[in-house]
Amino acid sequence: MCFKKFSFAAQNCYQLNIGKFYAKHFMAQKLTKRSTDYSKWYNEIVVNADLAENSAVRGCMIIKPYGYAIWENMQAQLDKMFKATGHQNAYFPLFVPKSLFEAEEKNAEGFAKECAVVTHYRLKNDPENKGKLMVDPEAKLEEELVVRPTSEAIIWNTYRNWIQSYRDLPILINQWANVVRWEMRTRLFLRTAEFLWQEGHTAHATQSEALEEAQSINRLYADFVENFMAIPVIQGVKSESERFAGALETYCIEALMQDGKALQAGTSHFLGQNFAKAFDVKFATAEGGLDHVWATSWGVSTRLIGALIMTHSDDNGLVLPPNLAPIQVVIVPIYKGEEQQAEVAAVAKTLQKQLEDVNVRVKFDNRDKFKPGFKFNEYELKGVPLRVAIGPKDIENKTFEIARRDTLTKAVIDDQNAITYIQDQLEQMQSDLFEKAKNFREAHITEVDDFESFKETLKTKGGFISAHWDGTAATEVAIKNSTKATIRCIPTDGALEAGICVYSGKPSQQRVLFAKAY
Amino acid sequence: MCFKKFSFAAQNCYQLNIGKFYAKHFMAQKLTKRSTDYSKWYNEIVVNADLAENSAVRGCMIIKPYGYAIWENMQAQLDKMFKATGHQNAYFPLFVPKSLFEAEEKNAEGFAKECAVVTHYRLKNDPENKGKLMVDPEAKLEEELVVRPTSEAIIWNTYRNWIQSYRDLPILINQWANVVRWEMRTRLFLRTAEFLWQEGHTAHATQSEALEEAQSINRLYADFVENFMAIPVIQGVKSESERFAGALETYCIEALMQDGKALQAGTSHFLGQNFAKAFDVKFATAEGGLDHVWATSWGVSTRLIGALIMTHSDDNGLVLPPNLAPIQVVIVPIYKGEEQQAEVAAVAKTLQKQLEDVNVRVKFDNRDKFKPGFKFNEYELKGVPLRVAIGPKDIENKTFEIARRDTLTKAVIDDQNAITYIQDQLEQMQSDLFEKAKNFREAHITEVDDFESFKETLKTKGGFISAHWDGTAATEVAIKNSTKATIRCIPTDGALEAGICVYSGKPSQQRVLFAKAY
Repeated sequence: MCFKKFSFAAQNCYQLNIGKFYAKHFMAQKLTKRSTDYSKWYNEIVVNADLAENSAVRGCMIIKPYGYAIWENMQAQLDKMFKATGHQNAYFPLFVPKSLFEAEEKNAEGFAKECAVVTHYRLKNDPENKGKLMVDPEAKLEEELVVRPTSEAIIWNTYRNWIQSYRDLPILINQWANVVRWEMRTRLFLRTAEFLWQEGHTAHATQSEALEEAQSINRLYADFVENFMAIPVIQGVKSESERFAGALETYCIEALMQDGKALQAGTSHFLGQNFAKAFDVKFATAEGGLDHVWATSWGVSTRLIGALIMTHSDDNGLVLPPNLAPIQVVIVPIYKGEEQQAEVAAVAKTLQKQLEDVNVRVKFDNRDKFKPGFKFNEYELKGVPLRVAIGPKDIENKTFEIARRDTLTKAVIDDQNAITYIQDQLEQMQSDLFEKAKNFREAHITEVDDFESFKETLKTKGGFISAHWDGTAATEVAIKNSTKATIRCIPTDGALEAGICVYSGKPSQQRVLFAKAY
Repeated sequence: MCFKKFSFAAQNCYQLNIGKFYAKHFMAQKLTKRSTDYSKWYNEIVVNADLAENSAVRGCMIIKPYGYAIWENMQAQLDKMFKATGHQNAYFPLFVPKSLFEAEEKNAEGFAKECAVVTHYRLKNDPENKGKLMVDPEAKLEEELVVRPTSEAIIWNTYRNWIQSYRDLPILINQWANVVRWEMRTRLFLRTAEFLWQEGHTAHATQSEALEEAQSINRLYADFVENFMAIPVIQGVKSESERFAGALETYCIEALMQDGKALQAGTSHFLGQNFAKAFDVKFATAEGGLDHVWATSWGVSTRLIGALIMTHSDDNGLVLPPNLAPIQVVIVPIYKGEEQQAEVAAVAKTLQKQLEDVNVRVKFDNRDKFKPGFKFNEYELKGVPLRVAIGPKDIENKTFEIARRDTLTKAVIDDQNAITYIQDQLEQMQSDLFEKAKNFREAHITEVDDFESFKETLKTKGGFISAHWDGTAATEVAIKNSTKATIRCIPTDGALEAGICVYSGKPSQQRVLFAKAY
């Protein structure tokens, strides 16, 4: 077995007969390097790897089939995990009447500034402009409807009718839905006006059960993001000022991107009795009393695709963990003339069939319009984990040339061993990607004990800064204003350790993690 | 094997210790009969079987976990069928800017009167009302956004950028999404302001390819609805006045409900070049020319759940075809005292495991709070296809008592044969339900040749009326105004047959199907 770095013959791409498709991939060749402009690199990957693009609606994205297929893989796995832990899916309305929206004061305050509001239910012909429509002033709604930025209000208004006794509890419901938050500055996947997510909303008879639910979902998220998406995360709780609007505690998982910025990958909220009080949801306890119901809510979104891209990808394009890859293995034939093509295709199809039989997602790209080098580039850009090249020599030698996307190495493998080799490599790549990201993350957690080092580390190295904090919102704001770094979380596994706040010099019990964040 | 009608001991339900849960099922005992009030019967099934309920938002429903699980089963199967025919999923924005919405004139005209319009993007504190919010007049959108009633406009505006050459075609995309149509009269599942659906949007280089796509999707829908949902349908095309707004041809599948009213179960539209022209989507043809792209769109929605209920259910509640049932088999233990309960539970769990191993969706209901008769009623109401009762005598005799929901028959089966028996019965029930519905449908297609018989049949028997029609919209309207019946479709397999229009007496080439419809 021989491994070597491979590179593509650039001239393969310089054929001018493939129109727009060519143009797109020609651009891909020139993907901006991460070191040159990380943000530009990110946007180019999203667009050139056909994941998503901006739409005609400000801040709303179009998730293209390749990007959506990744989301479907994520959904399938998460959905399985939710159901295995006793949760059921349901669907609640897109709209929240304003009077319900404003019922839980903190939640309303948190989302009021960024919500899309439906005020009318009809358009009519514009008498001044033939062929144009205008809002019909006679079709004004009596009460405005907010397009859900999150569904606590509409759901807790419903739970009031579902819950009367402790026997009706717990309610463990999840919803897959679109939500809208009118963000002023948007970026594909990371921050969009409309995004797709799941939101869990559970109701419990006791505080401890609700707390345990919020915590166990946070662990479930960590399990999913680490073991399925190969993204290492730190579990923790948010400081009060970073909490979800209306929550008593927000548990979170925090990931670190390659540019040293943190990304909140998922949150799980202990809502106490806030929503039950706002919506008057009481239950008869087993002891014969009457109490407000305890609540949690939790969600992850298409934002995770942004985290995925920024954790694993490189200057050549997207790198996908095999678990998430819509295509895990691509077979590219190499041939001259129709006869050779048919010969190679026969072998390729046999391999394809064998891989399908062991549930490997495989594509055989037998398009004649495109040269192998062009295809190599395309699948590299799109992050396909393994590429099998088959040419006349391979058929002669009964071998395949198999290349790995993450390491850019390739090996020549006997055809008899190919299936096992491919399965092993997919597994290996999944764990290698996680290890690589974890090593990077570990190398980018820096303990600092004074504010000068804090600022210096942030500027020169980035990543998480582990520092003592006096626990006040005032210090948090001062540090943010001075450095743009925020408290990402108070780590769940952080040891208690007496120390002195890096900013105020006041006493502290525990280090917390600061970072600049997406 | 012995079959007999079974009935439940009513007194089992008259226990007062189960609060609201009891109250709900007590109501279920009193389900209105179809013959008394079909519409009320339908609403009671939807609510009492925990499928859906009305929300605080006018016309928007809440799909409860049990109802949503049926939708998930439908989605999974349809999604598989779409992918097997080369379609991919993607996601487009919820909002359509007004200028795009109005671009295709007929489509805009068709939907303008029933669309929710977002005009503002922010709420603010109401200075006159402490704790209340109001629309912030300073956050008025420059251009209003229509909440999609369907996505042709936003998608064809996008396709313009995706399509330049015949090499970019076909595009075969499906979207799972929520849409909003501001209907004035709504009914759970059948007609709601917001509903869930899938919408396919395809782009083609030739008219014939687009036509073939629209037709083959209509066949796919018929296959799905008949073979998966056990609902027989008639395939056909719509008359011009019943066409989708913006389509040149609308293919459809029409089902017949038990009250003799028709229900449009799915539609597939050949859109010609209308949207390509409205959104300027041209492509370079293989021959070197430039042409507008040909389009189709097609969809089925949560409305199908309404069709499902009204096709199979009876006066005892929901009846679900096994393919769609979230729970295919429920095991109810019968015991006195803890010792017996443990004994029965051990046998039940073994059976449960065996059924799970052969992919039967099975629930073992070992709740001690509820008596067997109560549980029997609950699962009958919820349409669980098979119920297995296990008591001490069954353990002694090594048998199970297995009851079928559709026929209300039960049989005592040796435990050794139980798995095979259950699998057979599930299969049998799936095909029996289809046959039963098909027989009903066949018995309710009446050929009539004069307008008096037309009106008489409609009044006394209902169902589809197969009659000659002169092909004019004027006659169609006149018949509708006189009888409320509309042309449901011109059947695809209808033979050409010279005749005389049942209304105008003018010549006709083919019979069409009329019916009152949902």
